[in-house]
Amino acid sequence: MHIDLNADMGEGFGAYRIGHDEELVGIVTSANVACGFHGGDSTIMHGLAVAAAARGVALGAHPGFNDLWGFGRRAIPMPVRELEYMVAYQIGALQALAAYANAPLRHVKPHGALYNMAATDAAYAGAIAGAVRTVDDGLILVGPPGSELEKAADLAGLFFAREGFCDRLYREDGSLVPRGEPGAVIANADAAALQALRLATEGVAYTAGGGKVKLEVDTLCVHGDEPGAVAVAKAVRRALEQVGVELRPLSPSVADAV
Amino acid sequence: MHIDLNADMGEGFGAYRIGHDEELVGIVTSANVACGFHGGDSTIMHGLAVAAAARGVALGAHPGFNDLWGFGRRAIPMPVRELEYMVAYQIGALQALAAYANAPLRHVKPHGALYNMAATDAAYAGAIAGAVRTVDDGLILVGPPGSELEKAADLAGLFFAREGFCDRLYREDGSLVPRGEPGAVIANADAAALQALRLATEGVAYTAGGGKVKLEVDTLCVHGDEPGAVAVAKAVRRALEQVGVELRPLSPSVADAV
Amino acid sequence: MHIDLNADMGEGFGAYRIGHDEELVGIVTSANVACGFHGGDSTIMHGLAVAAAARGVALGAHPGFNDLWGFGRRAIPMPVRELEYMVAYQIGALQALAAYANAPLRHVKPHGALYNMAATDAAYAGAIAGAVRTVDDGLILVGPPGSELEKAADLAGLFFAREGFCDRLYREDGSLVPRGEPGAVIANADAAALQALRLATEGVAYTAGGGKVKLEVDTLCVHGDEPGAVAVAKAVRRALEQVGVELRPLSPSVADAV
Amino acid sequence: MHIDLNADMGEGFGAYRIGHDEELVGIVTSANVACGFHGGDSTIMHGLAVAAAARGVALGAHPGFNDLWGFGRRAIPMPVRELEYMVAYQIGALQALAAYANAPLRHVKPHGALYNMAATDAAYAGAIAGAVRTVDDGLILVGPPGSELEKAADLAGLFFAREGFCDRLYREDGSLVPRGEPGAVIANADAAALQALRLATEGVAYTAGGGKVKLEVDTLCVHGDEPGAVAVAKAVRRALEQVGVELRPLSPSVADAV
Repeated sequence: MHIDLNADMGEGFGAYRIGHDEELVGIVTSANVACGFHGGDSTIMHGLAVAAAARGVALGAHPGFNDLWGFGRRAIPMPVRELEYMVAYQIGALQALAAYANAPLRHVKPHGALYNMAATDAAYAGAIAGAVRTVDDGLILVGPPGSELEKAADLAGLFFAREGFCDRLYREDGSLVPRGEPGAVIANADAAALQALRLATEGVAYTAGGGKVKLEVDTLCVHGDEPGAVAVAKAVRRALEQVGVELRPLSPSVADAV
Repeated sequence: MHIDLNADMGEGFGAYRIGHDEELVGIVTSANVACGFHGGDSTIMHGLAVAAAARGVALGAHPGFNDLWGFGRRAIPMPVRELEYMVAYQIGALQALAAYANAPLRHVKPHGALYNMAATDAAYAGAIAGAVRTVDDGLILVGPPGSELEKAADLAGLFFAREGFCDRLYREDGSLVPRGEPGAVIANADAAALQALRLATEGVAYTAGGGKVKLEVDTLCVHGDEPGAVAVAKAVRRALEQVGVELRPLSPSVADAV
Repeated sequence: MHIDLNADMGEGFGAYRIGHDEELVGIVTSANVACGFHGGDSTIMHGLAVAAAARGVALGAHPGFNDLWGFGRRAIPMPVRELEYMVAYQIGALQALAAYANAPLRHVKPHGALYNMAATDAAYAGAIAGAVRTVDDGLILVGPPGSELEKAADLAGLFFAREGFCDRLYREDGSLVPRGEPGAVIANADAAALQALRLATEGVAYTAGGGKVKLEVDTLCVHGDEPGAVAVAKAVRRALEQVGVELRPLSPSVADAV
Repeated sequence: MHIDLNADMGEGFGAYRIGHDEELVGIVTSANVACGFHGGDSTIMHGLAVAAAARGVALGAHPGFNDLWGFGRRAIPMPVRELEYMVAYQIGALQALAAYANAPLRHVKPHGALYNMAATDAAYAGAIAGAVRTVDDGLILVGPPGSELEKAADLAGLFFAREGFCDRLYREDGSLVPRGEPGAVIANADAAALQALRLATEGVAYTAGGGKVKLEVDTLCVHGDEPGAVAVAKAVRRALEQVGVELRPLSPSVADAV
C-alpha cells in the first residue's frame, strides 16, 4: 500500500513569509508550489524547487487567481479562455524555475477559490485541464474525487489524482464542512492522523454526523498555513508509516488515466 | 543578404492597449513579447503567439522588471540571483503560451531598463544569460553589439544576435543619443528606412555629429509604441526589400555562437 | 431647468492611456476620477484634479475593486467591512490630490462591478455609504434611482444623486440592457442626445421594447471609454443647451438629502 | 525631559503579516502606518488607526515606493513630481482611515528607500515636503537630523522632528553603519536601551569606532520587524521611564518649526 502526501507551499511573497516550507519539505512527498499570482515569487519558487528536488519531493504547480490581496481565496469571475491562459502561464513559469533543479513538474493542483470553483464548474474545470494538456499532457491533475475536475481530466485524456484532506471534516455527501463552521478544521494532530489512516487504508472518512463516507484517494493534503501544520504533517506521516503505508509521490501509473 | 526585423509587442494589460500589434505582426519577422511584468498578460501573450506563428514570425520573450506602473523603464536595483529567477519565470510563462501555437521560442530580448542595465552591467548581463541557459540554451539572446550582454552570452555559450535601431540616432561611440535629447528618436519613416539600409547593407550608422559609426547587426528594431511605428516599419521593410535584403527571423546559424 | 453631465475619467495607469480625458473635461460638469485601484494613478489624479478645477468641473471619487487586470469590471466578493475601508482609502487618496487644486470633492460614484453590486446588494451599498459618511458626510453619493445605493444613502443621511445613462438602452423595469446584448450601447451621438433630452426634460427613457420608463435623474452619464465618447458628449451637451437645460455640477441643494 | 518613541507598523498585506503591531502599539507613542504601497492595506490601516487612537498613540503616514515585492527597500528612480503625488496619495488614504478613529494624523515619515533617498537628495526631500505642505501643513515631517529632509521641511515651513535609532549602530559622521556590516543592528535589548538613554538624555550615540557622535533627536525609532522588536521596545521604554524621561508623542510645539 502506498499514498502521496502533499502540501501547498511557497506562498510567501517578497519580504512576506507564510506557512512552514522548510519543515514541510522534509515531511511531504509532493509540494504544490504557488506561482506568483495568489502568492509566491520567482525567488521562492526557485528555492523550493531546489529544496524539493534535493529530497525527492515531487514538484507541482499550484496556480491561483491573480489576487495577491485576497490570497487567491476570492472567487473572481473570468472568461473561461482567459482563465485557461492564466493557468498555462503559471505552469510555464514554474517549469522554468524547476529547470534549475533539473526537476520536471509532476502535477498541477489549483489553489483556493480556483480549486473550489473548478470542482463544481465544468467550464472552469475544462479550462484548467486544457491548460495542462497544452503545456504538458503528462502532468497529473489533482482534485476532489468525483468532481468536475476529475471529469475534465477524463475528457482531456489526462492523469488525475484524487485528493483527500487530513485536517478537514467531511460531510456525508463527501463535501467538506465549510471553514467557519464548528469543527471544519481538524487542528488536533492525532485526529488528523486518524483521518489520514482511514482515508489511506479504508477509503473512508468519518463525518460530522458520526457516519462514514467512502472516499478513495491517491493523495492526502495537509494545509501548510495552519499554525499546527508541521505537527499535523509529522503525525500523519508517522501514523501511515507505522501501519506500513508507503509514502511516495504521485506517478502516472499510480494516478490512472481515467 | 538577409536580416531580421523585430519589434516589442504585446505590451498591453487587461483593458489597456499600447502599440500596434495587429499591424506590426504582419510586417516584422520577430516579435518580442512582453511577459506580464512591465506589460502584457496571459491572454495577450496567447493571442500574439498564435498570430505570430500563423505568419511565420519568430517569437521571443521580452522580460522586464516587475513594474507595471513604470512600464519597465525604471532601473530597479535587485540582487543578481533574484533578477535571474525573475527572467527565467517570464521566459517559462511565454513558453507555456507559445505551446498553444506549437511555436517554440526563438530568442530573448530584455526590455527597457533591464536592457539598458544589462548592456553595461556584467552581473545583470550574466544573470540574464544564466536564465536563458537554464531554461533553454538554444534560445538566442538579443542585445547591443559589443555590450556586456554579448560578453555574457559568450561566456554562457549562448547564441547572440546584435541589434541595431532603425529609429534612434547613434553617437560616435555606437551608443544611442538618450531619449529627451533633440533628434534622439527618428520619427520620419524615410529617415528610419535609410538608417535601416545603412545598418543592413553597410554595417554603419550616420551619427548625430555627421560622422559614421561601424555597427554590424543581425537584427533591426522598430519601436512598436511610437505613434508612427507602423509607417516606420513598413518603410523599413520596403526599403530593405527593394535593394534585395531578405527579411527573415533569427536562427542559431545566423546568430553565430560567439 | 438644469442637470449635471458626468463622465468617468482618469482611468489610465502609468504609461497606459484610456478614454478621452482632455476633451471630456471641457464638455462635462462632473468628473468621476479613478483612484488607482481599477485604473488611475496619483499623477493622473493630480492632472485631472487641476484640469477639472480650472474649468469649474466638479470632482468626484470613482472607487473600484483592487483589480487593475480586470479594470474593476469583475465582481470580487469581499467582506463588507473590508470593502468599506477600501472605498474610504480611495476617497482619501483623491482628496489629497484634489488639494493641489484647492478643490474639495463633490461626489462619489462607485465604478464598474462595484456600482452594479451596490445597486442591488444592501450590504455593499451600506458599506459604500458608510465610507462616504465617515470620510466626508457632505459628499453626494451617485447611483441608480431606486437602487440599494439610494436607500443606503438615505439611511446614512447622505445626499444622493440619481444617475441616468445617455448611451445605454433601458428596459421596461428601469434596468439597463446588459452589455453584450444587441443595442445595449447607444453609440450614435444623435440617439444618445435624444435619450439625454428625454431624461432631462421628461424624466423618461424609451425602452428596448418601444415603451417608456419613468426615470427622474439628477445627473447624466456619458461613458468616457467608448470610441465615440467625445462626439456623444458634445451632442448631448448641445442638445440640452439648445432647449435651455442648464448644465451645472451637482450640489447638495440639487441632490436633496433623501 | 520627554521624547517620542516611534515604530513602523501596519506593514502586512492581505493574508500576510509582518512585524508585531499588537504588542508595539501598547509600547510606543507614535505609529508610522504603512499606506498600501510597500506594505499595508486599507483593512490593516483601519485596524491600526483604531488601536492607536484608543491608546493615545499618535498616527503618522509611512509612505513608500509602489513596490510590494521589494517592500519599499529598492531605490526606484522617479520623476520628482510623480514622487510628490505618490506621497500625497498615501497621506490622504491614511487620513480617510484615521477618520474612523476621529484621529487626525500627526506626522509623516517616509519608508525604507524613500527615507534614505530623501535624506540625501534635495529634490526628493523637497517633493515629500511639498506633498505634506499641500495635504496638511500642520503635519510634522520626521527624518534624520541635518538631512536634506530637514532642510526641505525648513524651506517648506513645516515642523520637523529629528529621529534617532535605538537599534542601529552609528558612525562618527552621524550616519548609520549599513545593514549587512557587522554590528549594524543592535539586537540586544539592553544595548538598544542604553543607546536610547544616551540619545534622549545626552544627545549622543556611541559609535562603531568607540567614539561619540552628537545627535540631538526628538523621536526614537525601534524597528518593528526585527525578531526581538518587542523586547527592544519594552527595554527602551523601561530605561527611559526609570530615569524620568517622559514618553509622549510629537507635537508641533515639541518639533519646532525649523
